[in-house]
Amino acid sequence: MAKDNKTAINPRRDEDYPIWYQEVIKAADMAENSDVRGCMVIKPWGYTIWENIQKELDDMFKATGHKNAYFPLFIPLSYLQKEADHVEGFATECAVVTHHKLTKNSEGTLVPDGELDEPLIVRPTSETIIGATFSKWVNSYRDLPILINQWANVVRWERRTRLFLRTAEFLWQEGHTVHATKEEAVDETIKMLGVYRDFAEQVMAIPVITGEKSESERFPGAVSTYSIEAMMQDRKALQAGTSHFLGQKFAKASNIKFQSKDMQEEYAWTTSWGVSTRLIGALIMTHSDDNGLVLPPRIAPAHVVFLPIYKTDEERDTVLAFIEEIRTEIRGLGRYHERHIVADVDDRDMRGGEKNWSWIKKGVPLKVEVGMRDIEKNSLAVLRRDNPELKKDFINRDEFVKNLHATLDDIQKTLFDRAKAFRDENTRTIDDKDEFEAYFTPENKDKPEIHGGFALSHWCGSVQCEDELKDLKITIRNIPLDAKEEAGKCIHCGAPSKRRVVFAKAY
Amino acid sequence: MAKDNKTAINPRRDEDYPIWYQEVIKAADMAENSDVRGCMVIKPWGYTIWENIQKELDDMFKATGHKNAYFPLFIPLSYLQKEADHVEGFATECAVVTHHKLTKNSEGTLVPDGELDEPLIVRPTSETIIGATFSKWVNSYRDLPILINQWANVVRWERRTRLFLRTAEFLWQEGHTVHATKEEAVDETIKMLGVYRDFAEQVMAIPVITGEKSESERFPGAVSTYSIEAMMQDRKALQAGTSHFLGQKFAKASNIKFQSKDMQEEYAWTTSWGVSTRLIGALIMTHSDDNGLVLPPRIAPAHVVFLPIYKTDEERDTVLAFIEEIRTEIRGLGRYHERHIVADVDDRDMRGGEKNWSWIKKGVPLKVEVGMRDIEKNSLAVLRRDNPELKKDFINRDEFVKNLHATLDDIQKTLFDRAKAFRDENTRTIDDKDEFEAYFTPENKDKPEIHGGFALSHWCGSVQCEDELKDLKITIRNIPLDAKEEAGKCIHCGAPSKRRVVFAKAY
Repeated sequence: MAKDNKTAINPRRDEDYPIWYQEVIKAADMAENSDVRGCMVIKPWGYTIWENIQKELDDMFKATGHKNAYFPLFIPLSYLQKEADHVEGFATECAVVTHHKLTKNSEGTLVPDGELDEPLIVRPTSETIIGATFSKWVNSYRDLPILINQWANVVRWERRTRLFLRTAEFLWQEGHTVHATKEEAVDETIKMLGVYRDFAEQVMAIPVITGEKSESERFPGAVSTYSIEAMMQDRKALQAGTSHFLGQKFAKASNIKFQSKDMQEEYAWTTSWGVSTRLIGALIMTHSDDNGLVLPPRIAPAHVVFLPIYKTDEERDTVLAFIEEIRTEIRGLGRYHERHIVADVDDRDMRGGEKNWSWIKKGVPLKVEVGMRDIEKNSLAVLRRDNPELKKDFINRDEFVKNLHATLDDIQKTLFDRAKAFRDENTRTIDDKDEFEAYFTPENKDKPEIHGGFALSHWCGSVQCEDELKDLKITIRNIPLDAKEEAGKCIHCGAPSKRRVVFAKAY
Repeated sequence: MAKDNKTAINPRRDEDYPIWYQEVIKAADMAENSDVRGCMVIKPWGYTIWENIQKELDDMFKATGHKNAYFPLFIPLSYLQKEADHVEGFATECAVVTHHKLTKNSEGTLVPDGELDEPLIVRPTSETIIGATFSKWVNSYRDLPILINQWANVVRWERRTRLFLRTAEFLWQEGHTVHATKEEAVDETIKMLGVYRDFAEQVMAIPVITGEKSESERFPGAVSTYSIEAMMQDRKALQAGTSHFLGQKFAKASNIKFQSKDMQEEYAWTTSWGVSTRLIGALIMTHSDDNGLVLPPRIAPAHVVFLPIYKTDEERDTVLAFIEEIRTEIRGLGRYHERHIVADVDDRDMRGGEKNWSWIKKGVPLKVEVGMRDIEKNSLAVLRRDNPELKKDFINRDEFVKNLHATLDDIQKTLFDRAKAFRDENTRTIDDKDEFEAYFTPENKDKPEIHGGFALSHWCGSVQCEDELKDLKITIRNIPLDAKEEAGKCIHCGAPSKRRVVFAKAY
C-alpha cells in the first residue's frame, strides 16, 4: 500500500469492481476508448501483452499442425446468408460497407458515392468467406485435413462496450479446419479446446473449466460449442475461448465436398475456434490487486525493471554501469520460455515515488531498485509484484541473477495457485434450491458482484429452466468435460438430471 | 529445367513477364484471388513469408525505440477531411461503412439498416485517426518523442488489382511518430528509410535506391516523401517502402500541440512510414526464375526440405530415421538469425518427380534427397535453389550439417549480389535525349517490358517535364539521397539541373 495507507487503485476491488477494472487499465496505460464508437486504442503496454499471447498461442497452433493464412476483411452479404442460424446471429450487429468512394455533393460536402452492387459486411467471424475458399481447395480426401488459423481484426457492433471485454472491433485468432470424418472433426474441436486450456493455465496462469455450452449458448450455426471458463475476482465467470464443432452445416452452406477413398462425393466436416483480446480482460481480472495490474512472467511485456537511484552524475554513472553488468549477465542466461528476458532500465527524470508506483501499477513481475548502498553490499532491493504486501527483499546480486528463471517460474506458479485456490474456495456443490438462490443473491444490493461464485448443480437440460434462471442472471457456463454421470434432480425444476453443470453469473 | 527441356513455369520470363509472375505465385501456392473484388487470400506459403517479414522488421523497429500499438479500423469521415490534400488523395478509392445492422425488408430480403449518423471509412492509412489519439497523449515536450508502429490491414479501392502488388485490402505496417522539432522529425524520416533499406538488402536480398520522391509523387498531405526503389527482372522499378516527413500539417489537422521547454505552446512535427505485402511481390520479381520462386534463406518459410526416397516399408524406416538424426543435429546448431532453422520432411504419398518439382517451385533454399545409397555413402543429394541449373551436389552429410549456416549465408549473398549486378548492368547514365527515349522504347511492341532499365539523368525539377515523360510511361523514381551536386541539363527540356534522378518505368 502507498504511504498514506491508500491503495494505488481507487476504488478498491471491494468498493466498486467495475470501476476498479477500468482504473487498473488506465493506471497501467494499457488501452483507452477511441473517438470511434466502441473501438478501443490498445496502447503499447496492452498491445505487447497481446503480442505475447500471439507468440505463445501461435507456437502451440503450429506444434499441432496448423498453418496461418489470411482471408478478406469483407464478406458479401449473400455469403453471410448461406447459413441461416449464422446470419441470424450476426445480422443485428454488423458494420455494412455500401459505397466505395466519396464525392462532393452540390453543397460541397463529401458524401458516400459509388454504391456497391452487393453490400459487404466487415467480418464478424469468417466461416462463410473462408468456407467459400476451402470449397475450391478441397477435391479429394487427399486434400484433407485442412488446418488453418487466421490472426485478424473482427467487428461486432455491440451496444454496450467495455475495454478488452466487449468492443466493436477486436483482435482475435480464428482457427478453421476441414476433415473427412465426423470423428476427426470432433477430435479437432476437443484438441483445440485443450490447447486453449493449456495456454490459459500455463501461460496466463488462469485456471479454467473446459466443457460444452448448452444449446442456447452455441455459436450461431454450430452443432456444438465448447468453452474454457474462468472465475474473475468478483466470482463471476468469463468465457475465455471457444471451440466449435460445425458438423456439415457450413460445408453444405459453402459446398465443401470431397471424393472419399471409395469414390463417393461427400460433404466435409468443419470446426472453428477462437480467442480474442478479451483474454487480456480475463488476465486483468484474475490477477490484479488494489495496487494495479499483476502479470504472470510468461505474458509480461517486461520481466524485470531496474530503477536506478542516485544523487550526482558520478553516482548515476556508477549505478547505471552496475545495472548494465547485471543486464549482460541476464542476457547470458538465455531465453525464458522462448522469449528473450526483457530487463529494462527506467532512468526517466521524474519523482522516485511516482516512478516506483508506475511499475507497480503496470504489474511488472520484478522491480529492482539499485542505489549506491546496494552496490556496496552487492545487493538489490527486489519487489516481487505477486506479493500483495509489496514488501521489498534485499537479495544478493549474484543470487538474483542465478535464480532469475526459477524466481519467474515461482511467480508464475504462485499466481496460478492463488487463482485456483480462489476459484475452488468459491465453488460449491449445491443440491438445494433455496441454498442455490441464496448463493447467487448479493448480500448488499449496491454490490451485485458480491455473491457466492460457481455452483456445481444438476440441470435437467431444458431451455425453459435455463431461461428462467437467466432472469436471475444465473447462467449455465458449461457442462464440464470431466463431469461424472450422477443421478440427481434439476436445481430449478426438480426433474431428473444425469450430471452437474457449472452455474455462475457471467461477463 | 524439367526433363522435357521445358521450364516449370509457363510462360517463361522472356515470353510474358506479367503472366509468368502470376504463374509463379500459383505454382508456389502463395496466394489467390478471392470472391471479394480485389481482395486476395494469402495462403500459408505466402503468409509465412509475411510473418517472417514482420518478425525481422519488428525487431528492427523495436531496436530503434518504437513500440507497437493498435488503433481503430474505422475513420470518421470528418477526421479524414481534416487534412485537405490527404482526403483528396484517398476519397476516390475508399470503402465506406454507412449502416450497422441488417434487417429483413417487406420482401424478406436482408438489407442494410441502422444508418450511421456519420459514415465511417475503412482506414486507407491511419494518420488522422492516430493523430486524434496522439493529440490526447501529448501535452508537454516531456511526452515527446512518441514512436509508434501499427501492424494492420488497410483498404484502398483500387480499380485494377494484382496479387501482392496492388490489392483492395492489403496488410502493412504504418509507423507514426511525433517530435518536438523539425530536425528530429526529419531525422526520424531518414532513419526509418535506412531501416527499410537495410531490411530490403540484408533480409530480402533486394538492392534498393534510397531517395526523395518528386512533389507530384508525395504521399497525400506529406511535406516530403522518401522511398526505397528496387529493380525487377523486367527492368521496371518497384517502390518497396516509403517514409514521410509530414511537417506540422497533420499536427495542425489533429491539433497535436505541446508545451515547449520555454513554456510556449507549439504544434508538433510528425512522420509516418510504411511497407506492405507488396514487398512479397518485389521478392518474387527480384529472385524468381523460370522454374518458380527463389527465396533468400532469411525470409524463407522453410530453410531445408528433406525428400525421403525408398521402396519398402523397411527402407522407409531407415531413411526417415537417418533424416531425423540430421534434423536433430540441425536443431543443435541453434538459431539462424534469431529464427529456428526450419528443416521439414516431405513424406507425402505422391510421384517423386511431382514432389521434387513442388519444392523447386516453392523456392525452398535447400532441397535434400535421401535414399538408401546416400545413407551407405553418408552423403546427401543437395539442390541449392539459387543455382539456376538446378544441379544436384552430393555432399557429405557431416559437412552439410557443419556448413549449413554458412551455406545459407552464401545463398543469401549470392541472391543479393546477382540482383545488384542485374540492376547495375541495367542502369545507365544518360545525357542525350534521343538515347534516353530509345532506352525506354521497347524493341518489340508485344513485349513492352523489354526496355533499357534505370536511367540516371538530369531533371530540371518542373512538373511539366515530369508529366510529359509520364505520357511515355517514364517516371521519376526518386532523387537519390547520395546524388552528388553536378551541373547538367534536363534530359527532357534542356533547362539547367543540379543533380541526376532515377528515371524508370514502374509498377
